[in-house]
Amino acid sequence: MEHRKISRAVISRLPRYHRYLGDLLEEGVERISSNDLSKKMHVTASQIRQDLNNFGGFGQQGYGYNVKYLYTEIGKILGLDKTHNFIIIGAGNLGQALANYASFERSGFILKSLFDVNPRLEGMSIRSVQVRMMDELVDFLANNDIEIAALTIPKTKAVEVADILVANGIKAIWNFAHTDLTLPKDVVVESVHLSDSLMQLSYNISRRKESRKK
Amino acid sequence: MEHRKISRAVISRLPRYHRYLGDLLEEGVERISSNDLSKKMHVTASQIRQDLNNFGGFGQQGYGYNVKYLYTEIGKILGLDKTHNFIIIGAGNLGQALANYASFERSGFILKSLFDVNPRLEGMSIRSVQVRMMDELVDFLANNDIEIAALTIPKTKAVEVADILVANGIKAIWNFAHTDLTLPKDVVVESVHLSDSLMQLSYNISRRKESRKK
Repeated sequence: MEHRKISRAVISRLPRYHRYLGDLLEEGVERISSNDLSKKMHVTASQIRQDLNNFGGFGQQGYGYNVKYLYTEIGKILGLDKTHNFIIIGAGNLGQALANYASFERSGFILKSLFDVNPRLEGMSIRSVQVRMMDELVDFLANNDIEIAALTIPKTKAVEVADILVANGIKAIWNFAHTDLTLPKDVVVESVHLSDSLMQLSYNISRRKESRKK
Repeated sequence: MEHRKISRAVISRLPRYHRYLGDLLEEGVERISSNDLSKKMHVTASQIRQDLNNFGGFGQQGYGYNVKYLYTEIGKILGLDKTHNFIIIGAGNLGQALANYASFERSGFILKSLFDVNPRLEGMSIRSVQVRMMDELVDFLANNDIEIAALTIPKTKAVEVADILVANGIKAIWNFAHTDLTLPKDVVVESVHLSDSLMQLSYNISRRKESRKK
């Protein structure tokens, strides 16, 4: 199927559709109407129809969407029909938490190694994936086909390590360090800034309190 | 200072401004022009001027912003001038990672306890904060003034636990479980869906590859 150009706003909503469709598949649901999906996802049915029309996967009126088909098509758009080898830099709590998400592997993200500077972690394995020391990183990248690196290290080291990764062929960085990375244009960066998210929560708490006072 | 109504889009950018201004403060920078901040943040100077004008903290032309003042004002908007007591439900790797972020405490988020069902974690402490068993949760909430609960547990348990938290007075949930929570309107929820973020990265990798082929 040839995909037409899909807007950024739709793209940003796709992982959520994919998640809900995956849950429906697990529950054995084969078809779902935009109205039922709308109730589940707390989005308007018309938004859902508009978004999913991009995939040509809309069923006939009153017949609903084919869950499996849409799940697969959205997965393809998201690149989940391919395998992505990745490594984690920083085998502390957060790195280990990411290494333990079996669901990433089911989506095609294959963890090949973790790296750390802490010698106490040397030789350790997480779900049979080995923790290596940082001085083995460049060699490892030369000998393995790694596409993505997750950065779960403090911000003081993140910029330096990101530069090393990019110089050694990494094309995508999943950044958890508390800093933004400025990298060449052909490197994809997706940042998860946990404290930004916590501040958003705190902002919403303040607003909620104010509106209660009124 | 009385704050006028600030748009959602501006609000969503505030944590990032706060982070950059905090970094500047640490570096001892007292004033910065919108142009210099623009270069650092990779946002247009006019966007910065528009955003920061909301806080009345704009310096005279050619004189720049007062870093400390803006940092403080944005912090107030984000509710960071107040203390927020929080607990973490789920003392696995991710819960422990959150517990170890000393920077949250500097922003006024005070971790009071972690809870888990795993008896091997009983009596353990992380940065002198105690891990308690889940059957102590309701009592603990009755006797402590807790505002926020971070949920770092599997999605199969998340909905049930969130309901217990809300029934016992929690008004804000920082949700890391791989599911959306449907809660009463006066409860604030901020979700961090790690796999959604990984899929966004994977989507961008696919697009990048296609554009390279062209």
